[in-house]
Amino acid sequence: MDGAIREDAMNIGFVGLGKMGGAMVERLLVRGHDVSAYARTQASVDAVRTKGAYGADSLEDLVANLPLPRVVWVMVPAGNATEAIIHRLANLMEPGDCIVDGGNSFYKESMAHAHALEEREILFLDAGTSGGIWGLEKGYCLMVGGTREAFDMVQPIFRDLAPPDGYLLVGPNGAGHFVKMIHNGIEYAMLQAYAEGFEIMKAKEDFGLDLEAISHLWNQGSVVRSWILELAENVFAKEPHLESVWGYVEDSGEGRWTVAEAMEQDVPAPVITLSLLERFRSRQDQSFAAKVIAALRNEFGGHSIRSAEND
Amino acid sequence: MDGAIREDAMNIGFVGLGKMGGAMVERLLVRGHDVSAYARTQASVDAVRTKGAYGADSLEDLVANLPLPRVVWVMVPAGNATEAIIHRLANLMEPGDCIVDGGNSFYKESMAHAHALEEREILFLDAGTSGGIWGLEKGYCLMVGGTREAFDMVQPIFRDLAPPDGYLLVGPNGAGHFVKMIHNGIEYAMLQAYAEGFEIMKAKEDFGLDLEAISHLWNQGSVVRSWILELAENVFAKEPHLESVWGYVEDSGEGRWTVAEAMEQDVPAPVITLSLLERFRSRQDQSFAAKVIAALRNEFGGHSIRSAEND
Repeated sequence: MDGAIREDAMNIGFVGLGKMGGAMVERLLVRGHDVSAYARTQASVDAVRTKGAYGADSLEDLVANLPLPRVVWVMVPAGNATEAIIHRLANLMEPGDCIVDGGNSFYKESMAHAHALEEREILFLDAGTSGGIWGLEKGYCLMVGGTREAFDMVQPIFRDLAPPDGYLLVGPNGAGHFVKMIHNGIEYAMLQAYAEGFEIMKAKEDFGLDLEAISHLWNQGSVVRSWILELAENVFAKEPHLESVWGYVEDSGEGRWTVAEAMEQDVPAPVITLSLLERFRSRQDQSFAAKVIAALRNEFGGHSIRSAEND
Repeated sequence: MDGAIREDAMNIGFVGLGKMGGAMVERLLVRGHDVSAYARTQASVDAVRTKGAYGADSLEDLVANLPLPRVVWVMVPAGNATEAIIHRLANLMEPGDCIVDGGNSFYKESMAHAHALEEREILFLDAGTSGGIWGLEKGYCLMVGGTREAFDMVQPIFRDLAPPDGYLLVGPNGAGHFVKMIHNGIEYAMLQAYAEGFEIMKAKEDFGLDLEAISHLWNQGSVVRSWILELAENVFAKEPHLESVWGYVEDSGEGRWTVAEAMEQDVPAPVITLSLLERFRSRQDQSFAAKVIAALRNEFGGHSIRSAEND
């Protein structure tokens, strides 16, 4: 941090410089590591170059620029993008090198990656990463799966990306992304829990409740205090009734994998499941199921139907 | 705190010295207030007497011992107990006095109490109180409903019971207990969210996950960090697989009132509702609904029934 050369400073490759990756590179540079960075978007590479990273022109250039044994952190979207980068890196790297997947990959794919790389004697770590856009300042919580050998090799990087106590080898390959998946499943249900409470309070117009003030109040010693509730203070401070926000909620896969895992294990996880389904519902303008019910109530009870034309 | 006489020190009456009430009295005594305390259980009165409170022999004695205008904090179970104490106090107190209900009363009952007391010119505040057994040390989060006049009168007490910024006049009478009710509804769903995540992780035996270590890890910079998750660290530190804990979950009314309020407002609150229903399920050994399904599957598909005798 003070410019002195650190004994444990590393030279790491970083692939993917989006919201998360770019900030992580910045955090590592500030803490004295050398970073060689590559991304598809040239502007992202230029941005970290101005902060002191080596901006690689290609994946080949990135790998060639790293000392042995090489460590390359992959921070690109889960699925095909991650798959492709790991495959290409495997062909460029050598026995004893290490690939870290810091993205939100499905844990079974990470187990497969570990297995495929093991045949080439390339080490692999799946590092579930939480912290969002606040991680640059506060540090990223890192849930790591893999061997102790690989973990120890990358430890100086984990230590500087995370807040104190904020990184851990949670189990063998796959366990890191598994724990991150469950983390996100819990996050879905926590968001839904707060959201429902706020909606009921907003509906109780007689009391004229100030949701920003109540969020702040609850964060002082109440049982429901949390980091998400601190973010709610920001949200309601900007716009108390969220007029400008469209109530449309995406999902990035982790929630549905959590639900699928619950099914695979025969574990009831009703609230996490329902929180995912509520996201699906948020994307529907008209629910076909609701149309069916309205039509059937008309059939059996003569209950009136609101015509779509009147909308 | 240093024994000096405070200008804003108050003389307050306290009725109800259970887990919450007893600790609140202790917190006020330490901060230089005079407390006259009464409870049905003589041992509770004796306990706060040794800490410096005036131990009243009766409600009459408590009220007689307070200077005008009197403030009496009621901290007894919601429903009949609270109703009875407020009714008795109303007959003992005078215009300008103030009753604070710090319990978990249903907000509509608090509105009725305020209305009835208003006829006698007795002030009333409904003060939803959160913080559990940790409040003694960390302070209680207080959600207060009532008039500004009554709030200002009791403010020195609120200030010392709460952590900084931890008390607020959230609205008119009823609003304090309403906000506390929603707080508890959210709490039900948060508990269920974490609980489901932990159950899926426990079921994934291949990874041998350490739930205490993961709780601690998640509290360092992850999105799901919270006070409840800090308590989870304690829980799993004591017993990683909770062998000694019976999976039977009570409810104290706030959850079902939240669900009823959602229905009254026509607001969908599926996850809070389902979290309440999961508590009901936790209390069933055998679910009759499950028996019905098992029997019907046998009827239409010949699917075998597990005989109850084999259990």
